[in-house]
Amino acid sequence: MHEFTPPSGTLLGVGLGPGDPALITLKAADAVARTRVLAVPVKARGAESFARRIVAGRITPAHTVLELVFPMRSDPEVLRPHWQRAAQAILTHLDRGEDVAFLCEGDPFTFGTFIYVFREVARLRPHAPVEVIPGVSAYHAAACRTLTPLAAGDDRLCVLPATYGVEVVETMLERFDTVVLLKVKPVMDALLDMLARTGLTGHAVFVNKVGTDEEAVVTDVASLRGRKLDYLSLMLVRNPARVKEPVLRGCRPKVGA
Amino acid sequence: MHEFTPPSGTLLGVGLGPGDPALITLKAADAVARTRVLAVPVKARGAESFARRIVAGRITPAHTVLELVFPMRSDPEVLRPHWQRAAQAILTHLDRGEDVAFLCEGDPFTFGTFIYVFREVARLRPHAPVEVIPGVSAYHAAACRTLTPLAAGDDRLCVLPATYGVEVVETMLERFDTVVLLKVKPVMDALLDMLARTGLTGHAVFVNKVGTDEEAVVTDVASLRGRKLDYLSLMLVRNPARVKEPVLRGCRPKVGA
Repeated sequence: MHEFTPPSGTLLGVGLGPGDPALITLKAADAVARTRVLAVPVKARGAESFARRIVAGRITPAHTVLELVFPMRSDPEVLRPHWQRAAQAILTHLDRGEDVAFLCEGDPFTFGTFIYVFREVARLRPHAPVEVIPGVSAYHAAACRTLTPLAAGDDRLCVLPATYGVEVVETMLERFDTVVLLKVKPVMDALLDMLARTGLTGHAVFVNKVGTDEEAVVTDVASLRGRKLDYLSLMLVRNPARVKEPVLRGCRPKVGA
Repeated sequence: MHEFTPPSGTLLGVGLGPGDPALITLKAADAVARTRVLAVPVKARGAESFARRIVAGRITPAHTVLELVFPMRSDPEVLRPHWQRAAQAILTHLDRGEDVAFLCEGDPFTFGTFIYVFREVARLRPHAPVEVIPGVSAYHAAACRTLTPLAAGDDRLCVLPATYGVEVVETMLERFDTVVLLKVKPVMDALLDMLARTGLTGHAVFVNKVGTDEEAVVTDVASLRGRKLDYLSLMLVRNPARVKEPVLRGCRPKVGA
């Protein structure tokens, strides 16, 4: 005898933008309103969730809030059991046919914890429907807030953790017009030395938690030396003097391009 | 005798997201509702505006729509007079103290025409207030739509026009976990050859006008050979086998990083 298995619920990754509640999309607002189970990442049991705060005014008593713990660690081996536990907690609902909306700061597929949980759910339930709602990423918001265009025309843009070290960052600045640096805290002093040496200090801007009460925007980046920084803060660096390689013009296919 | 000069109106760059009207932010919807003068980019006089279409349902008879012509050309020398004319048309309103909302597909500061117009306005009226509302970029939307994470953990992401040529793109794929390629049309066949040679065909996805009636998503990118493509379409390529350099762990400042 076969038991009746209801179809799986949908896992929704919901991008909520960088922190300003006005920067969520209509689609994200709608997803939060119509999904009963909200999965909310926290650093520790009972800690405040940044993602949850963005939509605090939209969470009602009808919602079930599933707190998922992801410690502030960068080692994947430390984090893996947390991703697995989160996936299991989500599957409990999906397997009952209930949708789960995973609330994400910024964009769900841009350096988000959601990516790992999504991969784990997809591995365990390859047929479970997944929908990901993009959001405004923190670096786009930082660029707009500081009136720093990220890329125009034939510009190249790259985004990487500054923890690759300052030598890597310096190489990137030779090849890209704009470099977005994440996780700048551990390397800040060395970064500032490099920017001074390459003449780019005036083309860098530091941003943290744009659009929130805790927003920090620092255009005089040299003043950051020795200051206490948030681990999640980022830096935008433009290299306006970069010598660009030639590009192909026109829109017709090129032979041997 | 001095004439009274009213304070300048504000130039707003309003990111409307990739095309799906549900992917505009609450802030962008509000800006469109409360700004009387809407500046709308078109390819040619009287042509349909993609940005305008995203918020078609929000434009009322109370709005003044300022059509600004930017031909589909990539040569900055051809485009410059158009940027200048657009800036002049906008200044006519700003100088009267009227705000102008420039409607932008995607994010205003990510490969948008708005960047050039903003620079021109800032040059001519350095004290005119400017506010830029970030939007969901097309490549973030493409990543979410195709369930292709852009970057996680220590991944590196880069975004560049494919018109730098396939050799440059191949180098980028050695150094980045995800490469977002814009303007793929002119180099598509050479790109497909390179992807086949490097074993990455199965890790590429082609997307155009995500979230619109004209959306095209192609996961079997080899099938694109010889097909008619939109100039603005993009490709996401992941290099899952990339050998990563070591990164610094922990959040304490590192000496000699």
